[in-house]
Parts: sequence; C-alpha cells; structure tokens
Amino acid sequence: MDKTHDPRATSWIEVDPSSDFPIQNLPFGVFSPEGEAPRVGVAIGEFVLDLSAVAQRFDIGAPAEVFASRSLNRFVSLGRETWREVRLRVFDLLHVDNGSLREDADLRSRSLFERTRVRMQVPFEIGDYVDFYSSEQHATNVGSMFRPDNPLMPNWKHLPVGYNGRASSVIVSGTPVRRPLGQTKPADAESPLFGPTKALDFELEVGFFTGKENPLGEIVPTSQAREFIFGLVLVNDWSARDVQRWEYQPLGPFLAKSFATTVSPWVVTLDALEPFFVEGPVQDPPVLPYLRYEGKWALDLHLEVWLKSTAMSKHQRICKTNFRQMYWNMAQQLAHQASNGTNIQVGDLYASGTVSGDTPDSYGSMLELAWRGERPLKLDETGEERSFLQDGDSVLMRGWCEGEGYRVGFGECEGTVLPPLDSSSSD
Amino acid sequence: MDKTHDPRATSWIEVDPSSDFPIQNLPFGVFSPEGEAPRVGVAIGEFVLDLSAVAQRFDIGAPAEVFASRSLNRFVSLGRETWREVRLRVFDLLHVDNGSLREDADLRSRSLFERTRVRMQVPFEIGDYVDFYSSEQHATNVGSMFRPDNPLMPNWKHLPVGYNGRASSVIVSGTPVRRPLGQTKPADAESPLFGPTKALDFELEVGFFTGKENPLGEIVPTSQAREFIFGLVLVNDWSARDVQRWEYQPLGPFLAKSFATTVSPWVVTLDALEPFFVEGPVQDPPVLPYLRYEGKWALDLHLEVWLKSTAMSKHQRICKTNFRQMYWNMAQQLAHQASNGTNIQVGDLYASGTVSGDTPDSYGSMLELAWRGERPLKLDETGEERSFLQDGDSVLMRGWCEGEGYRVGFGECEGTVLPPLDSSSSD
Repeated sequence: MDKTHDPRATSWIEVDPSSDFPIQNLPFGVFSPEGEAPRVGVAIGEFVLDLSAVAQRFDIGAPAEVFASRSLNRFVSLGRETWREVRLRVFDLLHVDNGSLREDADLRSRSLFERTRVRMQVPFEIGDYVDFYSSEQHATNVGSMFRPDNPLMPNWKHLPVGYNGRASSVIVSGTPVRRPLGQTKPADAESPLFGPTKALDFELEVGFFTGKENPLGEIVPTSQAREFIFGLVLVNDWSARDVQRWEYQPLGPFLAKSFATTVSPWVVTLDALEPFFVEGPVQDPPVLPYLRYEGKWALDLHLEVWLKSTAMSKHQRICKTNFRQMYWNMAQQLAHQASNGTNIQVGDLYASGTVSGDTPDSYGSMLELAWRGERPLKLDETGEERSFLQDGDSVLMRGWCEGEGYRVGFGECEGTVLPPLDSSSSD
Repeated sequence: MDKTHDPRATSWIEVDPSSDFPIQNLPFGVFSPEGEAPRVGVAIGEFVLDLSAVAQRFDIGAPAEVFASRSLNRFVSLGRETWREVRLRVFDLLHVDNGSLREDADLRSRSLFERTRVRMQVPFEIGDYVDFYSSEQHATNVGSMFRPDNPLMPNWKHLPVGYNGRASSVIVSGTPVRRPLGQTKPADAESPLFGPTKALDFELEVGFFTGKENPLGEIVPTSQAREFIFGLVLVNDWSARDVQRWEYQPLGPFLAKSFATTVSPWVVTLDALEPFFVEGPVQDPPVLPYLRYEGKWALDLHLEVWLKSTAMSKHQRICKTNFRQMYWNMAQQLAHQASNGTNIQVGDLYASGTVSGDTPDSYGSMLELAWRGERPLKLDETGEERSFLQDGDSVLMRGWCEGEGYRVGFGECEGTVLPPLDSSSSD
C-alpha cells in the first residue's frame, strides 16, 4: 500500500479529524504571503507549507526554482514520477516520526504559513478550458426544460458531450462575481433586451488539470489517462440562464458562461484520491472501443452547495450529491478530447459538467433545484426564497472523500454576487 | 494623411508592385532564421526586417528586448501608441529617402533576411480563441443544410453569434494538418462509427488579434475597438463536417473544429488597413445600443481560396470573395464579447466565421462550394472532382486590399492534408 493512504498516518502538525487537509491529502496550490510574491505550497491542516523554501534545504524531488512560481505549470511539467516523488517526500517531512523539518525552528518559521493569512491564486496558467456535460440526470433535467420534446440528444450516450469555455475568466475561490449584462428575449417581448441577467445560476462541477502534453495529431488512449491527469478541483461554472436560452443555438453557450468560472485553489492529486475510486455506472449502449477503459474511474466524492444571502448570518446547505454517479468519467473525457488529435497541454482545465443526482435535493444548479422557478428554494433563517441568485448571495461549494477517520477534501469554492454595471451607460 | 498611406511612398528595398508587403503595409510577425531563436520582424517585399537587431542601433519606439521574443505579446502589450510609433519609425528607416539603415552594410546584413529562408511562427501566444459566424450568406447556406426548416436562427440578426474554439491547436501557415479521427453517425447506420472523417473541409475566415487587456467585469464599447484591435490575419478553420453533424447539439461544435486552425503569419495592422475601411451592410432590424458603432468598420479585403491535389502541378482558384459584406463587424464582435464582462487579453484571436458571398463561386467552404456534394468541384488540370478534401490536398488562402498601384496583402495561409492515424490501433 502507498504509505500516504495509511489511515493511521499522522503529522507533527496537529490536524483536526474534520480537516480537508490531513497528511493523507497534501494538495498543491499557489499562494502569496502578505505582500510577497506567489509560490507553490502544500496544504496541511490549518497551514501551508512553502515548497520553494523547503526545497532550498531538503531534496524534495524537484529544484526550489520550480516552486518559486506563480503557477503549478513548471513543476507539473516535470511529469508524473516527479509529482509522486515530491508528494512522498513532503509526506515524510511532515510525518510525526520525522524531526528534520519539525526541529528546524528557523526553516519552520519561514516555510509554514497560516492558511487564513495567505492569498490563494488560480493554480495553473490555463491554456484551454473545456466543459463537459457528463451527468445523465443533469442533461435530462436541463434538456427537458430547454427542449421538452427532446431532452437527451441521440449522441449523449455515445460520446461525452462537451464544449470549449473561456480560459481568461477562470478565477479563484473568494473572488467576487459581477452579475453580467447580456442580451435576452423574454417570451412576451417582441425583440431582445440588453441588461443584467435575471437568471444568474451556479453549476456544481469537478474539474481536472492536465499535467502532460501530447503532440498535435496524436491521440491519448484511456489507458494513459493517469499519466496526464495531475489533480482535481471544485468548479463553479456560473451561468446566466436567460442569456443562454437566447444565444445558444446553433453554436452552443457563449456569453452565458464566459463572464466567470470559479475554481477551488487546492489541486487534490490523483494519488491522494486513489483509495476513493469506485466502479462507475454501467454504460448502455456499450461505448465505442476508443472510449472503453480498464479499472475504476468513478470517484466517491461527496459534494455540497451552500448559500448565504446578505440577510443571513451563515450559509445554508441547498444541495448534497456525489460525483460517483457521473455517466462519463475523466479517462473517457480526456480520450475523447484527444481522439481527433487535439494537443493536450500542461494546465488545461477539463470540467465535468453539472453534477446532479437522482433526488431533488441533489441537483447541482439553481435551475434544477428550484425547477425553473416553479419550486423556489426556501432560506430557513430569513424566510427568503430563491429561484435564481440575488446580488450579495454567496455560493459556497465543498467536496471531500471520506476515509477511515480522515477526509481527503477540496476546501472551498466560494463566490459572492456583485451588483451589475449600470447598463444604461452603454446605451 | 498618414504618410504610410501615401501611394507614392517607396522603399530603398525593391518591392514588386504585386507584392503583399510594400512599405505601405509593414505587418508584424515572428520568425526564426535557420538554427536561430525566434524574434519579431516586419515584412518588406521579399525580406524580413529583424526588429530585435534594428532596435539595438536605432530608437524605433520600443526597446530591443521586447522584439527578442517568441511572440508579439510583449511588444503589443505596450499599447496602441507604441504600435503606431514603431510602425512609423520602421517606415522611415525603410523609406527611399533615408540612408541610415541602407548605408550601414553591417547592420543591414544582420537584420535583413530573405523571407523564403526563415521559418515563421504563430505570431501570438494565444490566450483565448473565439470563432464568430458573421456572414449572413454562410449562416443561411449552412443553416439550410443542417436545419432546412430553420436556416437562420431568430437570434442571428440581433447578436454576432460565436463560440469558443481551441487555442492550443492554432498553427501557422505551412504546418500540415492530419485528417482527424472522429465519431460520426451516417444516416443509414444504426449506431455511430469511429474513424477518419470523410468530410474534411476548410473555412475561409479573417481573424483579429487583440492588443489590450480589460479587467474582468468591465465592458469594451465599440468606440474603444481601435484601442484593442492590433491587427488581422487569414484563418482557415478546418472542419470535419460529419463529426460536426453528429456532435454539435446541444452545446455546439467541439472536436469537429479543435484538431487544427491555421493562421497566416503576418499580422496586418489596423493602421495599414485604415484606407480600406468602407461602409458595411445596413443592419435591419436595428441593433441594440451596445452594438451600435460610429465610422466605417467593413473592410474591402479581397479573399481567395486555391486548391492543389497531389496530381496537380499548381493551385487552382476555387473561391473568390470579399470581406466587406460581413454582416457583423470586428467592433461589434469585440463589444459583444466584452458586454458580459469577459476580460479581453493581449493575444486573443477572434475569427470572423466563414466568409461567403452571394454567388456560388464566392462561398468560403467546400461544403457550400460543392453544395454538400451535390455539385462537386472540377479540378481542371487533372479532371479530378472534389466534394470534400482528400489526403494530400493543399488549401491556400490569400487576401489583399487594393491600393492605387500597391497592395496591402496578408501573404499566404496554407495547409496540406496528411493521411489519418490508423484508427484500428485505438480499437
């Protein structure tokens, strides 16, 4: 067994059993201590370990300069063997039996930062951002609203439907999101209008970052997916439903999605997630050979969405679901993306599409939870109702895999809605 | 009048009147002399002027180090005043009345390279690539094939329809393009197949690169477009029509387009194109206020597509059209993109969509020229026919604005089709 999967392993840094970041996790991220330049770190309990500092003193499997960077791209481009090696050596340094860092008070003070006192960054310089649509329940729910006669397209069970998103507007958890202006055409209007969206939504998703390139014109079989997938984050694919409805035919969602996409800052590695992979749903009809795969690729990852209005004192949970029921898995998504010879890059982000379960409280978007406004959500603390998001609302996503007495968690993916620009100024 | 628009201006470098690159043009690109690192240059007649070398000796408005780069991003991020200043100073150095560079034999020999002997690069590190759909004739032609009952969607005349493309697979003219594998579902098949596309196509487009950032959450009115648009290139948006037909609903084109997009290497500046802007088509119904614009934004740009099979000795022209009839213009495309607060970046590529005219010989794709195979193209030299592209076919695009006795041209955008990978290897 990989020693990092040992449930009994503990660190000399005290970690609460409910923490997302025990020694079994060790996710990578990019952080800035106050007033200092960004660098690469690993989360451990309530702390961040600065790898650019630690690597100057200890051999952690990669040189210090790859960690003195504003993104993970340089480190991750060194390849899977290096990702694993670095994680193992950091595990050793943090392990309760190891005194080398613990007893070096000077280095400890220079390399350990309280997580609440650092600023996190988008972890990668993102080349391309792709969004899939891989939850059967979500595709069926949304399809039945947008196309009542034809909810699930004939192609849906034959290929992981996806589309290209906007990379420039991927932002990190904690960044506020301005309500976008956009063109909409209400059913009772003769011609379209331009103004703030009235149907601002979130989408609960899980994304993976790639850590390896393939040359243009070559393919990536599902059997190579583990070489390519560095790790996972939570993704909020903010959506303006009224804009989407009017613009999306025939070329797909565009401005309804491109105004912002929030990611959680800590990239949880495939290595840390290994014990939590399970069998996925049976795919029927059988998929074409290039989409077949070996092994377990569904992930038993608990997911939640919490909402807080400006009038509320704390967040209320509005969705509870699990990533394991996704119809298409990451290996298939990647193999499909590369099946036409598209070159994969270090730092591409591939999101799953909204994660929705079978029950009404497990839907991963407001559109589904409030069923297009027919069943507004009740906010218990204040008695407010929500069909879509209001200005000032904070949307908070959480995710974790449950081990024996520990969690491999993702931290938070949060964004608060800012009021729109004055749209009359552009009239 | 801008002195660079003087038809009588000439350079001490002899330039043929049919050349795309007279002293009135001076497009920017990135080139590598044999065995050397890439750097920024300007095309003049049959030569490239190395700005990284010239700027070490003369003040050309920006420091030499911004030109010693593998992309235009660093130079262009200095802003529109600098783009204009550098172009004016290069104009002066190359002008027949100026001896400072002409008479410096050493610098001349180090800074002037024959264009046929250098290797061109994709001119920008591309952040996001967006493809619009702005030719009414093309949208109507394709719409009538894919959706006979509904060719032009109700939104089409209210907003410039567009979608996000794949940035990683944007390649430079001269790079071969492998015929992609993909999933298709022939009308007579019970279930989909995976294999080489049987309907490989080109799309004749014109793209612009942005040279200025705006912050996330802000807009860019049409009146600011000239500050943001650095210059234009020819674009071949290669397409697999059979893959597109099966995959594109409901989220738009994905793998049918992402395998390759070819750009011409020389970025022709808005300043050079200024004399060729004309009134665009009347937009009816009137557009919303955020899409209104002042001044001339249609471009009188002649466009051609030429084809050569392996059996032919030279290319045959198969399409002749003009960019001026596009329904939506660049200022509107950019304002629409940013209307929801999307952050524009230095080095984004925005392509026009296929440029098709009113007559059957002015259509910008094989799908339209051969009308879905109903009217195959005849290749005169060999008697071959084409409904879609065959392996070995070379597609060559050209574009130029016609001045009085000179051309402001775009050079070539060429790609040759390579045979596909063996798809059985992924079975």
